[in-house]
Amino acid sequence: MSDLTNDRKIEHIQAIEKDPQTDRSGHYFDRIRLSHRALPELNLGDIDTGCDFLGYRLSFPMLISSMTGGDHELIKRINRNLAEAAERCNVAMAVGSQRVMFTTPEAKESFRLREFAPSVPLIGNLGAVQLNYGIEKAQAEAAISVLEADALYLHLNPLQEAVQPEGDTDFSGLAEKIKKLASELDVPVLLKEVGSGLSPADIELGLQSGIKCFDVAGSGGTSWSRIEHHRRKDSSDLGLKFQDWGLPTPLALKMAEPYLSSATIVASGGLRDGIDMVKSVILGASLCGMAAPLLKPAMESADAVVAEIEKIKTEFRTAMFLLGVPDMRTLYNNHALIVEEC
Amino acid sequence: MSDLTNDRKIEHIQAIEKDPQTDRSGHYFDRIRLSHRALPELNLGDIDTGCDFLGYRLSFPMLISSMTGGDHELIKRINRNLAEAAERCNVAMAVGSQRVMFTTPEAKESFRLREFAPSVPLIGNLGAVQLNYGIEKAQAEAAISVLEADALYLHLNPLQEAVQPEGDTDFSGLAEKIKKLASELDVPVLLKEVGSGLSPADIELGLQSGIKCFDVAGSGGTSWSRIEHHRRKDSSDLGLKFQDWGLPTPLALKMAEPYLSSATIVASGGLRDGIDMVKSVILGASLCGMAAPLLKPAMESADAVVAEIEKIKTEFRTAMFLLGVPDMRTLYNNHALIVEEC
Amino acid sequence: MSDLTNDRKIEHIQAIEKDPQTDRSGHYFDRIRLSHRALPELNLGDIDTGCDFLGYRLSFPMLISSMTGGDHELIKRINRNLAEAAERCNVAMAVGSQRVMFTTPEAKESFRLREFAPSVPLIGNLGAVQLNYGIEKAQAEAAISVLEADALYLHLNPLQEAVQPEGDTDFSGLAEKIKKLASELDVPVLLKEVGSGLSPADIELGLQSGIKCFDVAGSGGTSWSRIEHHRRKDSSDLGLKFQDWGLPTPLALKMAEPYLSSATIVASGGLRDGIDMVKSVILGASLCGMAAPLLKPAMESADAVVAEIEKIKTEFRTAMFLLGVPDMRTLYNNHALIVEEC
Amino acid sequence: MSDLTNDRKIEHIQAIEKDPQTDRSGHYFDRIRLSHRALPELNLGDIDTGCDFLGYRLSFPMLISSMTGGDHELIKRINRNLAEAAERCNVAMAVGSQRVMFTTPEAKESFRLREFAPSVPLIGNLGAVQLNYGIEKAQAEAAISVLEADALYLHLNPLQEAVQPEGDTDFSGLAEKIKKLASELDVPVLLKEVGSGLSPADIELGLQSGIKCFDVAGSGGTSWSRIEHHRRKDSSDLGLKFQDWGLPTPLALKMAEPYLSSATIVASGGLRDGIDMVKSVILGASLCGMAAPLLKPAMESADAVVAEIEKIKTEFRTAMFLLGVPDMRTLYNNHALIVEEC
Ligand SMILES: Cc1cc2nc3c(=O)[nH]c(=O)nc-3n(C[C@H](O)[C@H](O)[C@@H](O)COP(=O)(O)O)c2cc1C
Ligand SMILES: Cc1cc2nc3c(=O)[nH]c(=O)nc-3n(C[C@H](O)[C@H](O)[C@@H](O)COP(=O)(O)O)c2cc1C
Ligand SMILES: Cc1cc2nc3c(=O)[nH]c(=O)nc-3n(C[C@H](O)[C@H](O)[C@@H](O)COP(=O)(O)O)c2cc1C
Ligand SMILES: Cc1cc2nc3c(=O)[nH]c(=O)nc-3n(C[C@H](O)[C@H](O)[C@@H](O)COP(=O)(O)O)c2cc1C
Repeated sequence: MSDLTNDRKIEHIQAIEKDPQTDRSGHYFDRIRLSHRALPELNLGDIDTGCDFLGYRLSFPMLISSMTGGDHELIKRINRNLAEAAERCNVAMAVGSQRVMFTTPEAKESFRLREFAPSVPLIGNLGAVQLNYGIEKAQAEAAISVLEADALYLHLNPLQEAVQPEGDTDFSGLAEKIKKLASELDVPVLLKEVGSGLSPADIELGLQSGIKCFDVAGSGGTSWSRIEHHRRKDSSDLGLKFQDWGLPTPLALKMAEPYLSSATIVASGGLRDGIDMVKSVILGASLCGMAAPLLKPAMESADAVVAEIEKIKTEFRTAMFLLGVPDMRTLYNNHALIVEEC
Repeated sequence: MSDLTNDRKIEHIQAIEKDPQTDRSGHYFDRIRLSHRALPELNLGDIDTGCDFLGYRLSFPMLISSMTGGDHELIKRINRNLAEAAERCNVAMAVGSQRVMFTTPEAKESFRLREFAPSVPLIGNLGAVQLNYGIEKAQAEAAISVLEADALYLHLNPLQEAVQPEGDTDFSGLAEKIKKLASELDVPVLLKEVGSGLSPADIELGLQSGIKCFDVAGSGGTSWSRIEHHRRKDSSDLGLKFQDWGLPTPLALKMAEPYLSSATIVASGGLRDGIDMVKSVILGASLCGMAAPLLKPAMESADAVVAEIEKIKTEFRTAMFLLGVPDMRTLYNNHALIVEEC
Repeated sequence: MSDLTNDRKIEHIQAIEKDPQTDRSGHYFDRIRLSHRALPELNLGDIDTGCDFLGYRLSFPMLISSMTGGDHELIKRINRNLAEAAERCNVAMAVGSQRVMFTTPEAKESFRLREFAPSVPLIGNLGAVQLNYGIEKAQAEAAISVLEADALYLHLNPLQEAVQPEGDTDFSGLAEKIKKLASELDVPVLLKEVGSGLSPADIELGLQSGIKCFDVAGSGGTSWSRIEHHRRKDSSDLGLKFQDWGLPTPLALKMAEPYLSSATIVASGGLRDGIDMVKSVILGASLCGMAAPLLKPAMESADAVVAEIEKIKTEFRTAMFLLGVPDMRTLYNNHALIVEEC
Repeated sequence: MSDLTNDRKIEHIQAIEKDPQTDRSGHYFDRIRLSHRALPELNLGDIDTGCDFLGYRLSFPMLISSMTGGDHELIKRINRNLAEAAERCNVAMAVGSQRVMFTTPEAKESFRLREFAPSVPLIGNLGAVQLNYGIEKAQAEAAISVLEADALYLHLNPLQEAVQPEGDTDFSGLAEKIKKLASELDVPVLLKEVGSGLSPADIELGLQSGIKCFDVAGSGGTSWSRIEHHRRKDSSDLGLKFQDWGLPTPLALKMAEPYLSSATIVASGGLRDGIDMVKSVILGASLCGMAAPLLKPAMESADAVVAEIEKIKTEFRTAMFLLGVPDMRTLYNNHALIVEEC
């Protein structure tokens, strides 16, 4: 009933619960100072935080980032709570890696979320590196199908794999296989990191592979290198050594700006409130993902997740108001809202 | 006898007394280094700190910033102490929001300050956003008349309103209404923030509305977002999240410099001594407001307020002396007095 | 036997002893990084730290800065110890303000130091502002004569005077009077600050007054504003407010560089070891003064002062060695020795 | 059996053991941010960390830096453990100063390491300054011969000598003598510092003397100035004063870049893990030395040293993987891998 891949997800959650420093609290967004409008010439109530993503209209540019899935009661509860909250708040949701489905078929249940979230974007998730370890079109289709997904995230996690004693570290020739898979599937494939950031070279390879949407998933928030460190039995401290490796999310966003005309950028990694989200959109993000901040509420109830998301939405709307920005179109990639100190 | 608006002012004062962190202590002026003149070629006693404001000659460019008013013994005492001190020190004084007059007529008494301060500028105060909630010419005239005011401050406080559960957050179309009101009144209308700063876009809108004087009231000192947080009964931490939002006062002053030829700039927000005032004038301020530092003395006596103001004046004069600056005209917007480290 | 001016000097010393923060420990020189020569191509023993000042050949560019004088046993002992050490170490020495001689004639004794220091430069000291309070040629000549001085320091201390309740704060028209006095005396007049720095404007005025040598005496070390604070009986904190006012010594040196072709620059204020001295010479100083670090040894014995100076000389020589610099001429104003980080 | 030079080495080791601050922990490499490749297009297992040095193929660009030698059981054990580990890990090794051989012939034993390390580069070591104190061709040849060395390090340590009471501080005319010696020997001569960095002027002199390989040995790690301080019997604090003197290793590497076409650069001084090594190679180093981190394991066993080196190699390989760099040729001096924050 349980296998290595299935157990792993519970171990991850335990590591996060026990060690608050798995959230690196880089607060990199704090270094960006926004302007303020004393005369916003707006009614706070009239501000339209809505935006489009994958053909849906969202209440605001929020994504519940990929977290979990597997054959455990806790995990099923987490995913249902998240899905229900996504629906009630009208935001997007991505699931955690679905690879577990192929070793533990009972895990499928945890991804059957469409009934709880009929009218929001749901995004599947597989590790891109698995394309070098047996995963191909058939499994990708299965992953999409169980979730009735609108898109499929392929996550890139070379650091997470490298710090595991037996990680899947053959990342050779992946771009070609991603290209092939993307062309075979009926839904769009999105590329993401898991906390070290996509660099311009990664985005260019992705564009050449036909990918149109990228989640930078930079550093500053959840550190997979540190989480995996806790799972090691030996004395290696490799995971600690690399715990802050990578591109801070705001930096990754800035470095991705040249690609805004050809790609949709998603921000994630260390976003912690609606102000971080507003800054991300100003730097070119169309959608903003959060994972760790929603984990604890998700272990509790859908209500708790809804409360957290509504809180963030209020912050987001308040910041738009104080910037004098009536809608997402005006906020998006609007550098005039950033104040350079002199 | 008491209503919501009237009680509020007492709650504000209590929040400030209980929580020293409502003064954000940004010390943003400390980052500016002034030159020093070992040979000032001046007699300290000859330095003329005097300046003109609203047709009055002040002993130095000090304004007791808008604080309070209402139907409470404490509040009346505060205002009388401030007014008496303003007169004795020959500095300007602004009162707190006079809106309370329209819901609690007994509050008027607290604004009848002309007898205590016959020969200094007195400035009335109303929230600009109230122009969207029923306030118009008649009330503005009443506010001016009870104070026998020389001018009327309209304060812009979108953040303070936004962090209140039922704040007045319709800031739409205000510029037009400000323009209309300004053209109808007999005394000049001044625009101010309350601790988040006016940005260039705000000043431009204000100029188009016929306003000639702006109080940037930037961040670094009293945080209304944090004060309002203490008044909330629910669990929201919105007020804390935004407690440092806005433009630091020195930055707001620098950003306002392009408008010095067409506007009079007042500095406030986090000024804490005569050195901060000197720096503000160097950055283009014609008048320097302080609120929080005068609150405690004002609860005590006019003497205590006078002592505080005289202390600040000595600091101001000393700094002018050490800069070799004989008068306000030479100090004003004189960037040569700032030393850039290299 | 004792008067106000005479007592004052003892009070200063007590304030310094009781409050270690009168030395502001700015460590401003630490921000300058020097290069290193692994192959200096020098014999440490061959390095020539000698330099010329006021017609004397010094063992290295050290000046015992102006400190004290007066009719007290302790003060006489301090001055004799300093003078004896200056002679034994072959460095220059300046005495503290000699104004006390004119109110307490017994104080003269403390300045009769030539017998202890026959072969090094001795520099007299008077407050320039006293030229507005009765001091003129006759007194200056008396001051020079009792010390058999090679030069006379006029110190500029507008801050120190301004923070005293009854300070001599008429600094008007001083440049003209300095010019007159300088032309009348047989020895050169040097201008110095006492811890707030000379600015370019001061040096230019000085040059116009015929002065050729300037001691910048910047901030970072002894704070007279703080020392005078301790002497106040009232509740004013003016002295604390201004305790860090002024130009940090390295900054004052950099700002003085345009005048190196027409003036000799002395560095003082916060120099604490031979490395600070080397940096000062690199920034254009011909002589480096220290006061506070020598006070405690001077209260003990000439031996203690000699030990301290020899320690500093060793540091100075070691730094020259590690920079591959054989002599003062090569060190002086040699910016190539500074490494800009990139 | 024991003399001053022989005892000294034991005293050094004791000072390092007792005072952890002899490692200055500058962490200067932390200021360099590297990019990240989410899509490295590499198999971690395929990465080739190998490089050539002195005609050998090394498993990765690691050098066990010069540490010790002498007639002591502990010291012999250290050197054998290091040599055995160098062989097993296939990395280069340098020995500590061999001067002790000439005063204590029994010390030779400690340098007879070729049998333990038959197939890796072994580098002898002498202080360059000894060329002014009697050392010449014959001794250099003896040093090379006992070690069967592939090269000879001449170390430059003007600071270490200067802070010793009776240090050998005649560094005059060394370049010429180095040139002569280098031309006479059968193996190449390498120049190194011991923790204060080589500057461009040093490298230029070295090039003119026919040297082709330079170990910058900058500051940030082991401070010889501080170690020698502990050996002083008098009260001087000269060694503490200069403990952080010199060029931080990354800065020294950057300053050496103009010479990359004519010289081979070795990095050492404060490197503490495989990430520091990767950064060093990016800045132009062909080999990366570490001393202090290997001392404690070397006192234990060859196994302990091997474990430490393997750990570092894993970090090195992991960083190459995450940069998408397949081999040393691609890593070397590749500035595109550095991210400048904006
Ligand atoms: C508990 C947890 C589980 C995660 N699992 C996955 C996963 O299975 N697949 C994936 O692509 N990302 C996963 N992530 C990474 C996030 O989706 C996202 O990329 C990362 O940037 C979240 O940042 P944050 O936690 O700092 O908000 C996980 C994150 C957390 C906190
Ligand atoms: C107790 C208190 C009450 C205030 N009330 C008002 C007010 O009614 N109207 C207004 O325009 N500003 C009000 N302010 C804001 C100040 O007038 C000013 O704009 C602000 O920048 C003061 O900064 P400071 O307290 O940091 O000196 C108040 C400030 C304080 C401390
Ligand atoms: C105890 C003491 C007394 C001083 N007295 C005088 C003085 O009488 N006249 C003067 O020109 N400077 C006086 N100074 C200032 C120093 O001469 C010098 O200008 C100042 O920069 C010393 O810096 P340092 O103490 O940081 O080394 C005195 C300093 C000290 C510490
Ligand atoms: C215990 C010890 C002994 C050393 N002995 C020598 C030596 O004899 N000759 C030499 O050239 N360098 C010697 N060094 C310096 C190192 O070889 C190297 O140059 C220095 O940069 C090492 O830096 P690290 O300890 O910070 O890694 C020694 C270093 C240590 C820690």
